[in-house]
Amino acid sequence: MSPDRVAQCAVLAMLFELSSSPKPGNVDRCHDFSDIGFHHFLASAVSAYPVFCKAAQGKGSTGSLIREGVLAWQTWNLSSNTHFGSLVLMVPIAIAAGRPGELQAELADVLEKTTVIDAIDFYYAFDQAKARVAEVDSFSLNDKNWQNALHDSGKTLQELMRLSSEHDIVAREWSTNYERSFLLAKRIAEKIDRWGLNDGVVRTFLEALAQVPDSLICAKFGKEKAHQVSERAGEALLDATLSKAHELDRELLAQDINPGSTADLIAASLFISLLRGLRF
Amino acid sequence: MSPDRVAQCAVLAMLFELSSSPKPGNVDRCHDFSDIGFHHFLASAVSAYPVFCKAAQGKGSTGSLIREGVLAWQTWNLSSNTHFGSLVLMVPIAIAAGRPGELQAELADVLEKTTVIDAIDFYYAFDQAKARVAEVDSFSLNDKNWQNALHDSGKTLQELMRLSSEHDIVAREWSTNYERSFLLAKRIAEKIDRWGLNDGVVRTFLEALAQVPDSLICAKFGKEKAHQVSERAGEALLDATLSKAHELDRELLAQDINPGSTADLIAASLFISLLRGLRF
Repeated sequence: MSPDRVAQCAVLAMLFELSSSPKPGNVDRCHDFSDIGFHHFLASAVSAYPVFCKAAQGKGSTGSLIREGVLAWQTWNLSSNTHFGSLVLMVPIAIAAGRPGELQAELADVLEKTTVIDAIDFYYAFDQAKARVAEVDSFSLNDKNWQNALHDSGKTLQELMRLSSEHDIVAREWSTNYERSFLLAKRIAEKIDRWGLNDGVVRTFLEALAQVPDSLICAKFGKEKAHQVSERAGEALLDATLSKAHELDRELLAQDINPGSTADLIAASLFISLLRGLRF
Repeated sequence: MSPDRVAQCAVLAMLFELSSSPKPGNVDRCHDFSDIGFHHFLASAVSAYPVFCKAAQGKGSTGSLIREGVLAWQTWNLSSNTHFGSLVLMVPIAIAAGRPGELQAELADVLEKTTVIDAIDFYYAFDQAKARVAEVDSFSLNDKNWQNALHDSGKTLQELMRLSSEHDIVAREWSTNYERSFLLAKRIAEKIDRWGLNDGVVRTFLEALAQVPDSLICAKFGKEKAHQVSERAGEALLDATLSKAHELDRELLAQDINPGSTADLIAASLFISLLRGLRF
Protein backbone atom coordinates (compact mmCIF):
# COMPACT_ATOMS: atom_id res chain seq x y z
CA MET A 1 0.00 0.00 0.00
CA SER A 2 1.32 3.47 -0.87
CA PRO A 3 2.36 5.76 2.01
CA ASP A 4 -0.30 8.27 0.89
CA ARG A 5 -3.00 5.60 1.10
CA VAL A 6 -1.81 4.62 4.60
CA ALA A 7 -1.94 8.28 5.67
CA GLN A 8 -5.43 8.66 4.21
CA CYS A 9 -6.66 5.59 6.12
CA ALA A 10 -5.16 7.03 9.32
CA VAL A 11 -6.61 10.52 8.95
CA LEU A 12 -10.00 9.14 7.88
CA ALA A 13 -10.01 6.84 10.91
CA MET A 14 -9.53 9.90 13.14
CA LEU A 15 -12.24 11.82 11.27
CA PHE A 16 -14.76 8.94 11.29
CA GLU A 17 -14.18 8.41 15.01
CA LEU A 18 -14.53 12.14 15.64
CA SER A 19 -17.69 12.57 13.58
CA SER A 20 -19.77 9.63 14.74
CA SER A 21 -22.51 10.64 17.12
CA PRO A 22 -23.61 10.23 19.89
CA LYS A 23 -20.33 9.07 21.44
CA PRO A 24 -21.27 9.81 25.05
CA GLY A 25 -19.05 12.42 26.67
CA ASN A 26 -16.75 13.10 23.73
CA VAL A 27 -16.55 15.86 21.12
CA ASP A 28 -18.51 14.61 18.11
CA ARG A 29 -20.38 15.80 15.08
CA CYS A 30 -23.12 17.28 17.25
CA HIS A 31 -21.26 19.09 20.00
CA ASP A 32 -18.03 20.82 20.99
CA PHE A 33 -16.36 21.23 24.37
CA SER A 34 -16.21 24.75 25.75
CA ASP A 35 -12.45 25.03 25.30
CA ILE A 36 -11.93 22.87 22.24
CA GLY A 37 -14.18 22.38 19.25
CA PHE A 38 -14.88 19.89 16.50
CA HIS A 39 -12.85 22.01 14.07
CA HIS A 40 -9.78 21.85 16.32
CA PHE A 41 -9.90 18.07 16.05
CA LEU A 42 -10.30 18.38 12.27
CA ALA A 43 -7.12 20.48 12.12
CA SER A 44 -5.27 18.10 14.42
CA ALA A 45 -6.20 15.05 12.31
CA VAL A 46 -5.22 16.69 9.01
CA SER A 47 -1.93 17.97 10.45
CA ALA A 48 -0.90 14.36 11.16
CA TYR A 49 -1.09 13.37 7.47
CA PRO A 50 2.63 13.89 6.66
CA VAL A 51 3.64 12.13 9.89
CA PHE A 52 1.68 9.01 8.93
CA CYS A 53 3.07 9.25 5.40
CA LYS A 54 6.61 9.37 6.75
CA ALA A 55 5.90 6.47 9.10
CA ALA A 56 4.67 4.32 6.21
CA GLN A 57 7.80 5.21 4.25
CA GLY A 58 9.89 3.78 7.08
CA LYS A 59 11.40 7.19 7.88
CA GLY A 60 11.79 8.24 11.51
CA SER A 61 11.57 6.25 14.73
CA THR A 62 8.32 5.52 16.55
CA GLY A 63 8.96 7.94 19.39
CA SER A 64 10.16 10.79 17.18
CA LEU A 65 7.12 10.41 14.91
CA ILE A 66 4.73 10.63 17.88
CA ARG A 67 6.58 13.77 18.92
CA GLU A 68 6.32 15.18 15.38
CA GLY A 69 2.59 14.51 15.41
CA VAL A 70 2.15 16.60 18.55
CA LEU A 71 4.34 19.41 17.15
CA ALA A 72 2.34 19.30 13.90
CA TRP A 73 -1.00 20.03 15.54
CA GLN A 74 0.62 22.78 17.59
CA THR A 75 1.61 24.64 14.38
CA TRP A 76 -2.16 25.27 14.10
CA ASN A 77 -2.15 27.02 17.47
CA LEU A 78 -3.91 24.15 19.16
CA SER A 79 -2.76 24.26 22.74
CA SER A 80 -5.01 21.53 24.16
CA ASN A 81 -4.42 17.81 23.81
CA THR A 82 -6.42 16.63 20.83
CA HIS A 83 -5.12 13.31 19.49
CA PHE A 84 -2.25 12.19 21.74
CA GLY A 85 -3.57 8.73 22.59
CA SER A 86 -4.62 8.17 18.98
CA LEU A 87 -1.13 9.08 17.72
CA VAL A 88 0.51 6.76 20.25
CA LEU A 89 -1.64 3.89 18.99
CA MET A 90 -1.66 4.73 15.30
CA VAL A 91 1.96 5.66 14.51
CA PRO A 92 3.18 2.05 15.00
CA ILE A 93 0.30 0.79 12.83
CA ALA A 94 1.31 3.21 10.05
CA ILE A 95 4.93 2.03 10.22
CA ALA A 96 3.78 -1.60 10.04
CA ALA A 97 1.36 -0.87 7.16
CA GLY A 98 4.23 0.46 5.06
CA ARG A 99 6.06 -2.88 5.31
CA PRO A 100 5.47 -5.88 3.06
CA GLY A 101 4.47 -8.48 5.69
CA GLU A 102 1.22 -9.27 7.48
CA LEU A 103 0.04 -6.25 9.46
CA GLN A 104 -0.17 -7.69 12.98
CA ALA A 105 3.18 -9.50 12.69
CA GLU A 106 4.91 -6.37 11.36
CA LEU A 107 3.31 -4.34 14.15
CA ALA A 108 4.65 -6.72 16.81
CA ASP A 109 8.10 -6.26 15.31
CA VAL A 110 7.79 -2.44 15.33
CA LEU A 111 6.84 -2.45 19.02
CA GLU A 112 9.52 -4.93 20.02
CA LYS A 113 12.25 -2.93 18.31
CA THR A 114 11.52 0.34 20.09
CA THR A 115 14.42 1.70 22.15
CA VAL A 116 15.08 3.91 25.14
CA ILE A 117 15.35 6.83 22.70
CA ASP A 118 11.76 6.16 21.66
CA ALA A 119 10.85 6.18 25.35
CA ILE A 120 12.51 9.57 25.86
CA ASP A 121 10.86 11.01 22.73
CA PHE A 122 7.52 9.68 23.94
CA TYR A 123 7.96 11.45 27.29
CA TYR A 124 8.83 14.70 25.53
CA ALA A 125 5.72 14.33 23.35
CA PHE A 126 3.63 13.50 26.41
CA ASP A 127 4.84 16.66 28.14
CA GLN A 128 4.37 18.79 25.04
CA ALA A 129 0.82 17.49 24.48
CA LYS A 130 -0.12 18.15 28.12
CA ALA A 131 -1.61 14.69 27.99
CA ARG A 132 -3.64 13.44 30.91
CA VAL A 133 -2.56 9.84 31.16
CA ALA A 134 -1.31 8.14 34.28
CA GLU A 135 2.50 8.33 34.30
CA VAL A 136 4.73 5.51 35.31
CA ASP A 137 5.60 6.37 38.91
CA SER A 138 9.30 5.70 38.66
CA PHE A 139 9.69 8.09 35.70
CA SER A 140 7.69 11.17 36.56
CA LEU A 141 7.89 14.33 34.48
CA ASN A 142 7.85 16.17 37.78
CA ASP A 143 11.34 14.85 38.40
CA LYS A 144 13.79 17.27 36.75
CA ASN A 145 16.14 14.44 35.98
CA TRP A 146 13.55 12.21 34.27
CA GLN A 147 15.53 12.19 31.05
CA ASN A 148 18.71 10.90 32.68
CA ALA A 149 16.83 8.47 34.88
CA LEU A 150 15.01 7.06 31.89
CA HIS A 151 18.16 6.89 29.80
CA ASP A 152 20.10 5.11 32.55
CA SER A 153 17.30 2.59 33.01
CA GLY A 154 17.65 1.57 29.36
CA LYS A 155 13.90 0.88 29.24
CA THR A 156 12.47 0.68 25.75
CA LEU A 157 9.15 2.35 24.94
CA GLN A 158 7.41 -1.01 24.88
CA GLU A 159 8.84 -1.91 28.29
CA LEU A 160 7.63 1.43 29.61
CA MET A 161 4.17 0.73 28.23
CA ARG A 162 4.14 -2.65 29.96
CA LEU A 163 4.59 -0.88 33.29
CA SER A 164 1.35 1.05 32.63
CA SER A 165 -0.63 -1.72 31.01
CA GLU A 166 -2.70 -2.45 34.11
CA HIS A 167 -4.24 0.98 34.31
CA ASP A 168 -4.05 2.42 30.80
CA ILE A 169 -5.98 1.24 27.73
CA VAL A 170 -3.43 2.58 25.25
CA ALA A 171 -0.47 1.03 27.09
CA ARG A 172 -2.34 -2.27 27.27
CA GLU A 173 -2.57 -2.36 23.49
CA TRP A 174 1.15 -1.80 23.20
CA SER A 175 1.72 -4.66 25.67
CA THR A 176 -0.50 -7.15 23.86
CA ASN A 177 0.43 -6.39 20.24
CA TYR A 178 -2.93 -4.63 19.85
CA GLU A 179 -5.01 -7.70 20.54
CA ARG A 180 -8.12 -5.69 21.38
CA SER A 181 -7.71 -3.23 18.50
CA PHE A 182 -7.62 -6.06 15.97
CA LEU A 183 -10.72 -7.65 17.51
CA LEU A 184 -12.53 -4.32 17.51
CA ALA A 185 -11.49 -3.70 13.89
CA LYS A 186 -13.50 -6.80 12.94
CA ARG A 187 -16.43 -5.78 15.15
CA ILE A 188 -16.50 -2.34 13.56
CA ALA A 189 -16.60 -3.76 10.04
CA GLU A 190 -19.46 -6.12 11.03
CA LYS A 191 -21.41 -3.37 12.75
CA ILE A 192 -20.91 -0.86 9.92
CA ASP A 193 -22.14 -3.49 7.50
CA ARG A 194 -25.29 -3.87 9.59
CA TRP A 195 -25.94 -0.37 10.93
CA GLY A 196 -24.11 1.97 8.56
CA LEU A 197 -21.00 3.97 9.34
CA ASN A 198 -22.25 6.30 12.06
CA ASP A 199 -24.24 3.84 14.14
CA GLY A 200 -21.69 1.08 13.55
CA VAL A 201 -18.93 3.22 15.07
CA VAL A 202 -21.16 4.39 17.92
CA ARG A 203 -22.21 0.83 18.80
CA THR A 204 -18.63 -0.46 18.75
CA PHE A 205 -17.64 2.47 20.97
CA LEU A 206 -20.41 1.64 23.46
CA GLU A 207 -19.47 -2.04 23.40
CA ALA A 208 -15.79 -1.29 24.04
CA LEU A 209 -16.68 1.12 26.84
CA ALA A 210 -19.00 -1.44 28.42
CA GLN A 211 -16.32 -4.14 28.32
CA VAL A 212 -13.43 -2.17 29.85
CA PRO A 213 -13.76 0.98 32.00
CA ASP A 214 -12.12 3.99 30.36
CA SER A 215 -8.67 4.76 31.75
CA LEU A 216 -8.97 8.52 31.25
CA ILE A 217 -12.13 8.54 33.39
CA CYS A 218 -10.30 6.36 35.96
CA ALA A 219 -7.39 8.82 36.09
CA LYS A 220 -9.64 11.86 36.48
CA PHE A 221 -12.62 10.56 38.48
CA GLY A 222 -11.59 7.23 39.97
CA LYS A 223 -12.42 3.58 39.32
CA GLU A 224 -15.93 3.59 40.71
CA LYS A 225 -17.08 6.35 38.38
CA ALA A 226 -15.43 4.61 35.42
CA HIS A 227 -17.28 1.39 36.25
CA GLN A 228 -20.61 3.21 36.51
CA VAL A 229 -20.08 4.77 33.07
CA SER A 230 -19.28 1.34 31.61
CA GLU A 231 -22.45 -0.12 33.08
CA ARG A 232 -24.49 2.68 31.55
CA ALA A 233 -22.79 2.15 28.17
CA GLY A 234 -23.83 -1.50 28.31
CA GLU A 235 -27.44 -0.50 28.97
CA ALA A 236 -27.37 2.03 26.14
CA LEU A 237 -26.18 -0.67 23.77
CA LEU A 238 -29.34 -2.70 24.39
CA ASP A 239 -31.48 0.17 23.16
CA ALA A 240 -32.05 -0.08 19.41
CA THR A 241 -32.78 3.63 18.95
CA LEU A 242 -29.63 4.95 20.68
CA SER A 243 -31.83 7.25 22.76
CA LYS A 244 -30.14 6.01 25.95
CA ALA A 245 -26.77 6.82 24.38
CA HIS A 246 -28.03 10.38 23.79
CA GLU A 247 -29.15 10.56 27.42
CA LEU A 248 -25.78 9.29 28.69
CA ASP A 249 -24.07 11.78 26.39
CA ARG A 250 -25.92 14.73 27.97
CA GLU A 251 -25.13 13.50 31.51
CA LEU A 252 -21.41 12.95 30.89
CA LEU A 253 -21.02 16.30 29.13
CA ALA A 254 -22.67 18.06 32.06
CA GLN A 255 -20.09 16.46 34.39
CA ASP A 256 -17.15 16.95 32.00
CA ILE A 257 -16.54 13.18 31.96
CA ASN A 258 -15.05 12.03 28.68
CA PRO A 259 -14.07 8.46 27.78
CA GLY A 260 -11.12 9.67 25.70
CA SER A 261 -9.01 6.50 25.85
CA THR A 262 -11.84 4.42 24.41
CA ALA A 263 -12.13 6.96 21.59
CA ASP A 264 -8.40 6.49 20.85
CA LEU A 265 -8.90 2.73 20.75
CA ILE A 266 -11.79 3.11 18.30
CA ALA A 267 -9.68 5.36 16.05
CA ALA A 268 -6.92 2.72 15.99
CA SER A 269 -9.46 -0.02 15.24
CA LEU A 270 -11.00 2.02 12.42
CA PHE A 271 -7.49 2.56 11.03
CA ILE A 272 -6.87 -1.21 10.93
CA SER A 273 -10.28 -1.78 9.44
CA LEU A 274 -9.72 0.83 6.68
CA LEU A 275 -6.29 -0.65 5.90
CA ARG A 276 -8.08 -3.97 5.43
CA GLY A 277 -10.54 -2.49 2.97
CA LEU A 278 -13.53 -1.42 5.09
CA ARG A 279 -16.46 -0.40 2.87
CA PHE A 280 -18.49 2.59 4.00
CA MET B 1 5.03 27.72 2.35
CA SER B 2 5.70 23.98 2.24
CA PRO B 3 3.59 21.83 -0.12
CA ASP B 4 2.30 19.89 2.90
CA ARG B 5 1.13 23.09 4.56
CA VAL B 6 -0.63 24.17 1.35
CA ALA B 7 -2.35 20.76 1.16
CA GLN B 8 -3.39 21.02 4.81
CA CYS B 9 -4.90 24.47 4.24
CA ALA B 10 -6.80 23.10 1.22
CA VAL B 11 -8.17 19.99 2.96
CA LEU B 12 -9.05 21.97 6.09
CA ALA B 13 -10.88 24.54 3.95
CA MET B 14 -13.00 21.71 2.51
CA LEU B 15 -13.61 20.26 5.98
CA PHE B 16 -14.48 23.60 7.60
CA GLU B 17 -16.89 24.39 4.77
CA LEU B 18 -18.41 20.93 5.04
CA SER B 19 -18.80 21.01 8.81
CA SER B 20 -20.28 24.45 9.37
CA SER B 21 -23.99 24.34 10.10
CA PRO B 22 -26.67 25.29 9.15
CA LYS B 23 -25.66 25.85 5.55
CA PRO B 24 -29.16 25.74 4.08
CA GLY B 25 -29.67 22.89 1.62
CA ASN B 26 -26.18 21.38 1.76
CA VAL B 27 -24.68 18.40 3.55
CA ASP B 28 -23.27 19.72 6.81
CA ARG B 29 -22.31 18.66 10.29
CA CYS B 30 -25.94 18.06 11.19
CA HIS B 31 -27.36 16.20 8.23
CA ASP B 32 -26.58 13.90 5.31
CA PHE B 33 -28.28 13.49 1.94
CA SER B 34 -30.05 10.20 1.34
CA ASP B 35 -27.52 9.04 -1.27
CA ILE B 36 -24.36 10.68 0.05
CA GLY B 37 -23.30 11.32 3.62
CA PHE B 38 -21.03 13.60 5.62
CA HIS B 39 -18.41 10.82 5.80
CA HIS B 40 -18.29 10.53 2.00
CA PHE B 41 -17.30 14.19 1.85
CA LEU B 42 -14.69 13.57 4.58
CA ALA B 43 -13.15 10.80 2.43
CA SER B 44 -13.30 12.95 -0.68
CA ALA B 45 -11.53 15.87 1.02
CA VAL B 46 -8.78 13.70 2.53
CA SER B 47 -8.20 11.89 -0.79
CA ALA B 48 -7.34 15.23 -2.42
CA TYR B 49 -4.37 15.84 -0.07
CA PRO B 50 -1.64 14.39 -2.37
CA VAL B 51 -3.14 16.23 -5.36
CA PHE B 52 -2.88 19.59 -3.58
CA CYS B 53 0.63 18.65 -2.42
CA LYS B 54 1.68 17.90 -5.99
CA ALA B 55 0.08 21.13 -7.22
CA ALA B 56 2.06 23.16 -4.68
CA GLN B 57 5.25 21.38 -5.78
CA GLY B 58 4.63 22.62 -9.33
CA LYS B 59 4.14 19.07 -10.61
CA GLY B 60 1.34 18.36 -13.08
CA SER B 61 -0.82 20.68 -15.17
CA THR B 62 -4.00 22.32 -13.87
CA GLY B 63 -6.36 20.13 -15.88
CA SER B 64 -4.58 16.87 -15.12
CA LEU B 65 -4.56 17.67 -11.39
CA ILE B 66 -8.32 18.32 -11.40
CA ARG B 67 -8.74 14.97 -13.13
CA GLU B 68 -6.47 13.28 -10.55
CA GLY B 69 -8.56 14.78 -7.77
CA VAL B 70 -11.72 13.18 -9.17
CA LEU B 71 -9.97 9.81 -9.67
CA ALA B 72 -8.62 10.01 -6.10
CA TRP B 73 -12.05 10.24 -4.47
CA GLN B 74 -13.28 7.44 -6.71
CA THR B 75 -10.63 5.08 -5.26
CA TRP B 76 -12.81 5.28 -2.11
CA ASN B 77 -15.80 3.94 -4.05
CA LEU B 78 -17.50 7.30 -4.05
CA SER B 79 -19.59 7.34 -7.19
CA SER B 80 -21.42 10.63 -6.63
CA ASN B 81 -19.96 14.06 -7.27
CA THR B 82 -18.59 15.34 -3.99
CA HIS B 83 -16.03 18.10 -4.51
CA PHE B 84 -15.81 18.77 -8.25
CA GLY B 85 -16.47 22.53 -8.14
CA SER B 86 -14.19 22.91 -5.13
CA LEU B 87 -11.34 21.11 -6.92
CA VAL B 88 -11.78 23.26 -10.04
CA LEU B 89 -11.46 26.39 -7.90
CA MET B 90 -8.81 25.17 -5.48
CA VAL B 91 -6.25 23.37 -7.65
CA PRO B 92 -5.09 26.65 -9.31
CA ILE B 93 -4.86 28.28 -5.86
CA ALA B 94 -2.65 25.41 -4.64
CA ILE B 95 -0.35 25.76 -7.67
CA ALA B 96 -0.08 29.50 -7.04
CA ALA B 97 0.53 29.04 -3.30
CA GLY B 98 3.57 26.89 -4.05
CA ARG B 99 5.21 29.74 -5.97
CA PRO B 100 7.27 32.53 -4.45
CA GLY B 101 5.23 35.56 -5.60
CA GLU B 102 2.08 37.25 -4.30
CA LEU B 103 -0.83 34.80 -4.30
CA GLN B 104 -3.33 36.63 -6.51
CA ALA B 105 -0.70 37.59 -9.11
CA GLU B 106 0.64 34.03 -9.27
CA LEU B 107 -2.92 32.72 -9.57
CA ALA B 108 -3.65 35.02 -12.53
CA ASP B 109 -0.51 33.64 -14.19
CA VAL B 110 -1.58 30.01 -13.55
CA LEU B 111 -5.00 30.63 -15.15
CA GLU B 112 -3.61 32.54 -18.10
CA LYS B 113 -1.11 29.81 -18.92
CA THR B 114 -3.66 27.00 -19.12
CA THR B 115 -3.82 25.25 -22.51
CA VAL B 116 -6.23 23.29 -24.66
CA ILE B 117 -4.84 20.13 -23.03
CA ASP B 118 -6.04 21.49 -19.67
CA ALA B 119 -9.43 22.07 -21.27
CA ILE B 120 -9.58 18.46 -22.51
CA ASP B 121 -8.49 17.09 -19.11
CA PHE B 122 -11.11 19.26 -17.45
CA TYR B 123 -13.83 17.81 -19.69
CA TYR B 124 -12.69 14.29 -18.91
CA ALA B 125 -12.79 15.09 -15.19
CA PHE B 126 -16.19 16.71 -15.56
CA ASP B 127 -17.53 13.59 -17.25
CA GLN B 128 -15.90 11.27 -14.70
CA ALA B 129 -17.28 13.25 -11.76
CA LYS B 130 -20.80 13.25 -13.26
CA ALA B 131 -20.80 16.92 -12.39
CA ARG B 132 -23.97 18.93 -12.83
CA VAL B 133 -22.69 22.19 -14.20
CA ALA B 134 -23.98 23.91 -17.31
CA GLU B 135 -21.78 22.85 -20.24
CA VAL B 136 -20.58 25.19 -22.92
CA ASP B 137 -23.03 24.54 -25.78
CA SER B 138 -20.47 24.33 -28.51
CA PHE B 139 -18.51 21.62 -26.69
CA SER B 140 -21.06 19.17 -25.34
CA LEU B 141 -20.05 15.84 -23.85
CA ASN B 142 -23.05 14.44 -25.71
CA ASP B 143 -21.14 15.00 -28.94
CA LYS B 144 -18.97 11.93 -29.52
CA ASN B 145 -16.34 14.08 -31.17
CA TRP B 146 -16.06 16.58 -28.32
CA GLN B 147 -12.38 15.84 -27.82
CA ASN B 148 -11.46 16.55 -31.47
CA ALA B 149 -13.75 19.56 -31.64
CA LEU B 150 -12.19 21.01 -28.50
CA HIS B 151 -8.66 20.23 -29.64
CA ASP B 152 -9.22 21.83 -33.07
CA SER B 153 -10.67 24.94 -31.46
CA GLY B 154 -7.42 25.44 -29.55
CA LYS B 155 -9.40 26.94 -26.66
CA THR B 156 -7.52 27.07 -23.36
CA LEU B 157 -9.27 26.11 -20.12
CA GLN B 158 -9.49 29.76 -19.11
CA GLU B 159 -11.07 30.67 -22.45
CA LEU B 160 -13.55 27.85 -21.99
CA MET B 161 -14.40 29.16 -18.53
CA ARG B 162 -14.99 32.64 -19.95
CA LEU B 163 -17.69 31.18 -22.21
CA SER B 164 -19.55 29.97 -19.09
CA SER B 165 -18.85 32.92 -16.83
CA GLU B 166 -22.30 34.46 -17.26
CA HIS B 167 -24.15 31.48 -15.83
CA ASP B 168 -21.66 29.66 -13.62
CA ILE B 169 -20.18 30.89 -10.33
CA VAL B 170 -17.04 28.74 -10.59
CA ALA B 171 -16.36 29.78 -14.20
CA ARG B 172 -16.86 33.42 -13.24
CA GLU B 173 -14.07 33.14 -10.69
CA TRP B 174 -11.74 31.73 -13.33
CA SER B 175 -12.66 34.65 -15.61
CA THR B 176 -12.04 37.36 -13.04
CA ASN B 177 -8.88 36.01 -11.41
CA TYR B 178 -10.97 35.02 -8.38
CA GLU B 179 -12.04 38.56 -7.53
CA ARG B 180 -14.99 37.40 -5.44
CA SER B 181 -13.09 34.59 -3.68
CA PHE B 182 -10.45 37.05 -2.48
CA LEU B 183 -13.12 39.46 -1.22
CA LEU B 184 -14.95 36.62 0.55
CA ALA B 185 -11.68 35.40 2.08
CA LYS B 186 -11.46 38.77 3.88
CA ARG B 187 -15.13 38.67 4.87
CA ILE B 188 -14.72 35.18 6.30
CA ALA B 189 -11.75 36.21 8.43
CA GLU B 190 -13.69 39.24 9.76
CA LYS B 191 -16.79 37.19 10.49
CA ILE B 192 -14.89 34.34 12.15
CA ASP B 193 -13.15 36.90 14.32
CA ARG B 194 -16.56 38.22 15.42
CA TRP B 195 -18.78 35.11 15.44
CA GLY B 196 -16.39 32.17 15.79
CA LEU B 197 -15.58 29.62 13.10
CA ASN B 198 -18.96 27.94 12.60
CA ASP B 199 -21.19 31.00 12.56
CA GLY B 200 -18.58 33.04 10.67
CA VAL B 201 -18.59 30.52 7.83
CA VAL B 202 -22.38 30.18 7.87
CA ARG B 203 -22.88 33.96 7.74
CA THR B 204 -20.42 34.41 4.88
CA PHE B 205 -22.20 31.58 3.04
CA LEU B 206 -25.59 33.28 3.52
CA GLU B 207 -24.15 36.64 2.44
CA ALA B 208 -22.62 35.14 -0.73
CA LEU B 209 -25.84 33.30 -1.54
CA ALA B 210 -27.88 36.49 -1.01
CA GLN B 211 -25.59 38.49 -3.30
CA VAL B 212 -25.48 36.10 -6.29
CA PRO B 213 -28.05 33.37 -7.04
CA ASP B 214 -26.48 29.92 -6.95
CA SER B 215 -25.67 28.54 -10.42
CA LEU B 216 -26.30 24.92 -9.46
CA ILE B 217 -29.84 25.84 -8.35
CA CYS B 218 -30.24 27.82 -11.61
CA ALA B 219 -29.16 24.81 -13.67
CA LYS B 220 -31.48 22.41 -11.85
CA PHE B 221 -34.51 24.56 -10.95
CA GLY B 222 -34.29 27.72 -13.05
CA LYS B 223 -33.46 31.37 -12.39
CA GLU B 224 -36.62 32.29 -10.55
CA LYS B 225 -36.15 29.63 -7.91
CA ALA B 226 -32.49 30.60 -7.50
CA HIS B 227 -33.50 34.24 -6.95
CA GLN B 228 -36.09 33.25 -4.36
CA VAL B 229 -33.49 31.24 -2.43
CA SER B 230 -31.11 34.21 -2.50
CA GLU B 231 -33.80 36.50 -1.14
CA ARG B 232 -34.48 34.08 1.70
CA ALA B 233 -30.75 33.85 2.45
CA GLY B 234 -30.65 37.64 2.77
CA GLU B 235 -33.54 37.55 5.25
CA ALA B 236 -31.89 34.75 7.24
CA LEU B 237 -28.76 36.85 7.52
CA LEU B 238 -30.64 39.60 9.35
CA ASP B 239 -31.61 37.15 12.09
CA ALA B 240 -29.02 37.13 14.85
CA THR B 241 -29.93 33.64 16.10
CA LEU B 242 -29.70 31.86 12.72
CA SER B 243 -33.14 30.34 13.36
CA LYS B 244 -34.31 31.53 9.93
CA ALA B 245 -31.28 29.81 8.42
CA HIS B 246 -32.37 26.57 10.12
CA GLU B 247 -35.88 27.05 8.74
CA LEU B 248 -34.55 27.66 5.22
CA ASP B 249 -32.33 24.60 5.60
CA ARG B 250 -35.31 22.36 6.35
CA GLU B 251 -37.27 23.74 3.40
CA LEU B 252 -34.47 23.37 0.86
CA LEU B 253 -33.63 19.85 2.02
CA ALA B 254 -37.27 18.84 1.63
CA GLN B 255 -37.16 20.06 -1.99
CA ASP B 256 -33.67 18.67 -2.69
CA ILE B 257 -32.42 22.16 -3.55
CA ASN B 258 -28.74 22.59 -2.76
CA PRO B 259 -26.66 25.72 -3.35
CA GLY B 260 -23.57 23.67 -4.16
CA SER B 261 -21.71 26.27 -6.23
CA THR B 262 -21.84 28.76 -3.38
CA ALA B 263 -20.40 26.05 -1.11
CA ASP B 264 -17.50 25.59 -3.58
CA LEU B 265 -16.89 29.32 -3.53
CA ILE B 266 -16.80 29.34 0.28
CA ALA B 267 -14.31 26.45 0.31
CA ALA B 268 -12.02 28.39 -2.07
CA SER B 269 -12.34 31.52 0.07
CA LEU B 270 -11.55 29.58 3.23
CA PHE B 271 -8.49 28.13 1.47
CA ILE B 272 -7.21 31.63 0.64
CA SER B 273 -7.97 32.78 4.15
CA LEU B 274 -6.10 29.83 5.72
CA LEU B 275 -3.10 30.42 3.41
CA ARG B 276 -3.06 33.98 4.74
CA GLY B 277 -2.97 32.82 8.35
CA LEU B 278 -6.63 32.69 9.42
CA ARG B 279 -6.92 32.14 13.20
CA PHE B 280 -9.67 29.82 14.37
